[in-house]
Amino acid sequence: MARGKLRIIPLGGVGEIGKNMTVLEYGNSIIVVDCGVMFPKENMPGIDLVIPDVTYLLEKKHKVKAFFITHGHEDHIGALPYVLPNFEVPVYATKLTRGLISVKLREHKLLDSTDLRAAEFNQPIDCGPFRIEYFRVAHSVPDAAGLGIRTPIGTVVHTGDFKIDLSPIDAKPTDIRSLARLGTEGVQILLADSTGVERPGYTPSESTVGRALDEYIRNAEGRVIVATFSSLIARIQQIVNISAKHGRKVAFMGRSMTQNSRMALDLGYLSDPGGVILPWERVAQLPAGQITVLTTGAQGEPSSGLSRMANRDHRQIQIRKGDTVILSAAAIPGNEELVARNIDNLFELGATVIYGPEAHVHVSGHPGREELKILTSIISPKYLIPVHGEARHLILHARMAESIGMPPGHVLVPQNGRVMEFTEDSARFDGRVPADNVFVDGLGVGDIGDIVLRDRRHLSQDGVVIAVLTVDRRSGRPAGPVELISRGFVDGSDEPIMDDARKQLVKSLQGIHSSAAAEPSYIQNRARDILQKFLYERTKRRPMVLGLVVEV
Amino acid sequence: MARGKLRIIPLGGVGEIGKNMTVLEYGNSIIVVDCGVMFPKENMPGIDLVIPDVTYLLEKKHKVKAFFITHGHEDHIGALPYVLPNFEVPVYATKLTRGLISVKLREHKLLDSTDLRAAEFNQPIDCGPFRIEYFRVAHSVPDAAGLGIRTPIGTVVHTGDFKIDLSPIDAKPTDIRSLARLGTEGVQILLADSTGVERPGYTPSESTVGRALDEYIRNAEGRVIVATFSSLIARIQQIVNISAKHGRKVAFMGRSMTQNSRMALDLGYLSDPGGVILPWERVAQLPAGQITVLTTGAQGEPSSGLSRMANRDHRQIQIRKGDTVILSAAAIPGNEELVARNIDNLFELGATVIYGPEAHVHVSGHPGREELKILTSIISPKYLIPVHGEARHLILHARMAESIGMPPGHVLVPQNGRVMEFTEDSARFDGRVPADNVFVDGLGVGDIGDIVLRDRRHLSQDGVVIAVLTVDRRSGRPAGPVELISRGFVDGSDEPIMDDARKQLVKSLQGIHSSAAAEPSYIQNRARDILQKFLYERTKRRPMVLGLVVEV
Repeated sequence: MARGKLRIIPLGGVGEIGKNMTVLEYGNSIIVVDCGVMFPKENMPGIDLVIPDVTYLLEKKHKVKAFFITHGHEDHIGALPYVLPNFEVPVYATKLTRGLISVKLREHKLLDSTDLRAAEFNQPIDCGPFRIEYFRVAHSVPDAAGLGIRTPIGTVVHTGDFKIDLSPIDAKPTDIRSLARLGTEGVQILLADSTGVERPGYTPSESTVGRALDEYIRNAEGRVIVATFSSLIARIQQIVNISAKHGRKVAFMGRSMTQNSRMALDLGYLSDPGGVILPWERVAQLPAGQITVLTTGAQGEPSSGLSRMANRDHRQIQIRKGDTVILSAAAIPGNEELVARNIDNLFELGATVIYGPEAHVHVSGHPGREELKILTSIISPKYLIPVHGEARHLILHARMAESIGMPPGHVLVPQNGRVMEFTEDSARFDGRVPADNVFVDGLGVGDIGDIVLRDRRHLSQDGVVIAVLTVDRRSGRPAGPVELISRGFVDGSDEPIMDDARKQLVKSLQGIHSSAAAEPSYIQNRARDILQKFLYERTKRRPMVLGLVVEV
Repeated sequence: MARGKLRIIPLGGVGEIGKNMTVLEYGNSIIVVDCGVMFPKENMPGIDLVIPDVTYLLEKKHKVKAFFITHGHEDHIGALPYVLPNFEVPVYATKLTRGLISVKLREHKLLDSTDLRAAEFNQPIDCGPFRIEYFRVAHSVPDAAGLGIRTPIGTVVHTGDFKIDLSPIDAKPTDIRSLARLGTEGVQILLADSTGVERPGYTPSESTVGRALDEYIRNAEGRVIVATFSSLIARIQQIVNISAKHGRKVAFMGRSMTQNSRMALDLGYLSDPGGVILPWERVAQLPAGQITVLTTGAQGEPSSGLSRMANRDHRQIQIRKGDTVILSAAAIPGNEELVARNIDNLFELGATVIYGPEAHVHVSGHPGREELKILTSIISPKYLIPVHGEARHLILHARMAESIGMPPGHVLVPQNGRVMEFTEDSARFDGRVPADNVFVDGLGVGDIGDIVLRDRRHLSQDGVVIAVLTVDRRSGRPAGPVELISRGFVDGSDEPIMDDARKQLVKSLQGIHSSAAAEPSYIQNRARDILQKFLYERTKRRPMVLGLVVEV
């Protein structure tokens, strides 16, 4: 019987728990599963990315043995360029995932210095006290994997992002047999993807999307323009096949769509048996009814291909009556407004737009509730940790597990930074490690904190008003006029209210200048208070007010 | 045959078209249908409300005869306090709508000066060349109406917001017979609610919600807390009835919920046959299984009842294990994140949370596609104007109408501010009138324009950096140190980068001070350019940079 303890710690993420990074620690060894980013929420203005807080890993740097990546989506690989330079350890991933990581590391000039290693399905990798086996799962990117991790206290299964799709387009379904084998051998801990737990039943197979796409593309008279995720190679393959079937050639638009499809073709994940994939220059010369365009922009990203088309700002494609635009994707929470604006604009340009759940041109990459029940039953873990979701998903997942017989004490609802400690026959929470949001903004990583964000939110609401007062160093008397400028508060600094505010300030400060207590910092604060009060009373707005005293 | 022309002009709204206000003009008479607000979009930070642009009405002030309000929702009545003071004309509305308008006018101290008049269903009101008949429609607020408007060039039917619900809770369904009568007499123009056109089939009846609510409330062991719209009296009635049936008393929480239910009780729109509606103080003393709370906050509004409960910030109610919280509403686009955060927090506090479409605890107040086909068939208008939606809704509605036989030239897809001109046998677009967004921010109405909003968005992204330089008026030489402050850019003004920026600025400006061209405005601009470039190179961020030269 193992005497050590296994510690599992989810790190990072905004709202979502256990998604971007999970730490497994036993004795003097740590392995890290995934290293992804989250996209900033509405209350994080100006932030580019949020990466996991690796303070704990840095403190135990000598213990960290390797990173194991489950699949190539941004929320699982995106933080590698920021985190890896701190750790000179290998990164394991399957083939296509390595391709996607390579593109990213090359951009950050880190490819040569990274020890990126091949993980093959069902070929265990030994790493200290851990033996890690990749098994295939179906997800919305090829070569996605779950991990079976043998540890001294028993086997841990981490599903990664997955669904049980037994008829995916690439004929590579979730490896139920490996799951069954692991379950038969006995699994101590299951970490399972909770993202889709709100959906009753089963997530439809990727192949069901083909039927709907076929109908729309067959009936389209003019050009067909499809926007989808550039890593969703199975979807791209279906659109290529359907286009070929109906006599259309296919051109790719947008940087990531062009890059990823090229890489997928090179690595053999995308095929073009009909030879229909051509550069836009050649496709452009065909009649409209023979043209399919695959583009980025399914999330309404402002500078993406589809958004430029919708805004009449695309160099190659002007949307016109007769075009059929298909949004083969669901809006990720937070992107709804951007996506809706594109749809409106495309309609106004005369296109037929196919979108939304009723169109059946998209399926999720995550399992529905019944799939999770099947998974739990096959694995029959001693302990369950729902991961990859917001609090509601994890709790619903936990209740679902309890409803099919898991003892409540054996389901641990995790939190980022909260340590879970396991032995062969026990599981408990054991304290916390740092797990703050680490913000990337421009070149800065982690240099922006809550004060800066609070100020940005304040500035966005009612703008800023700045008062500059010059004071004679010796006499403490005003040495020049009071200058007042504003941005985001009223149109132009010559509004009457700004003039009134200046007069009010001069008047209110008269007594102060002559007093002995006229320290610059005191005058500065008084000026701020006077202005804040005056402006609020006049406008019921609360701009950020800054007072600045310059001694001359 | 009438020789005049009828002009119909939709005004106002952000994205949504023909919803907040519609102008009908014939000869020397103008009537206005509705006078509502829109809520600001994400790209309008700090804005409280958006009201319609009434420039055109002000130019033709002498022509304006009356306002006709269809129902009491904010997007149809909310702009009255801002618009009415310019027009001394009567406002017509049905009984409950008048109640809701009165609350609003009283808050703005406008109730006494307003000529608020009763509109009775099916009792025509003459107004210049117009004869207006209110007919009842089912919608998510009682006493909602559509309008049949007889004009010299024929009858105009405006549905208002509606759905064809033939089993609503108040036993007051959409008045199909009046619609049939109007259709039989002949309708020239139909303006119809497009909001729900993306939904295939029929919108379920309000009564279907009762079955689901009954099951959840019957099975709840502890307290039941339901959040819904405070004007959705039929929903409130159902919850009161179901609570009574299962031995629960009902308390109201939140300002608008308390006010509206009180008014609905007073006016007879809400009944309490079981005597179960009680003040919270009395309900609080009951066992948990006998308590129902009806609260505001279904949209995640930060200071609402439910949000305070979710944030453990509510004075009366602390959410605990055993509580069942029901979100009997759908998130309005833009509110998804706020609503989801509340749900997560409620789960974490241990509540059972019932939410989302799968729970069947909410139905829309707008018609689905088949209902719109029925409406169009009953009315058989000569011309159709889809209204109340974003561009995609209107265009889908238009295509749907064409698919059931409307000639394309007879369907006019409107735009806010675009004039539609009708005679007995013609319809055409005829120019535009002003229809900008008019922003309400604090006490300011219309004083904020695009520059202020652009500055606010800029400030929110990377903050602001201000450089203050003092210059001797006579010599043009620096008269004091360069002061640099920032907000929302880096944590604290004592960061090394701020010091470096100051040094760079002093160095770069040295040559300039000694030159002849050292006008303050020139120095100001140079300082801004130098700083912008320096900060971008160092951080790849673009804060708003302000240079300010003070002459002493």
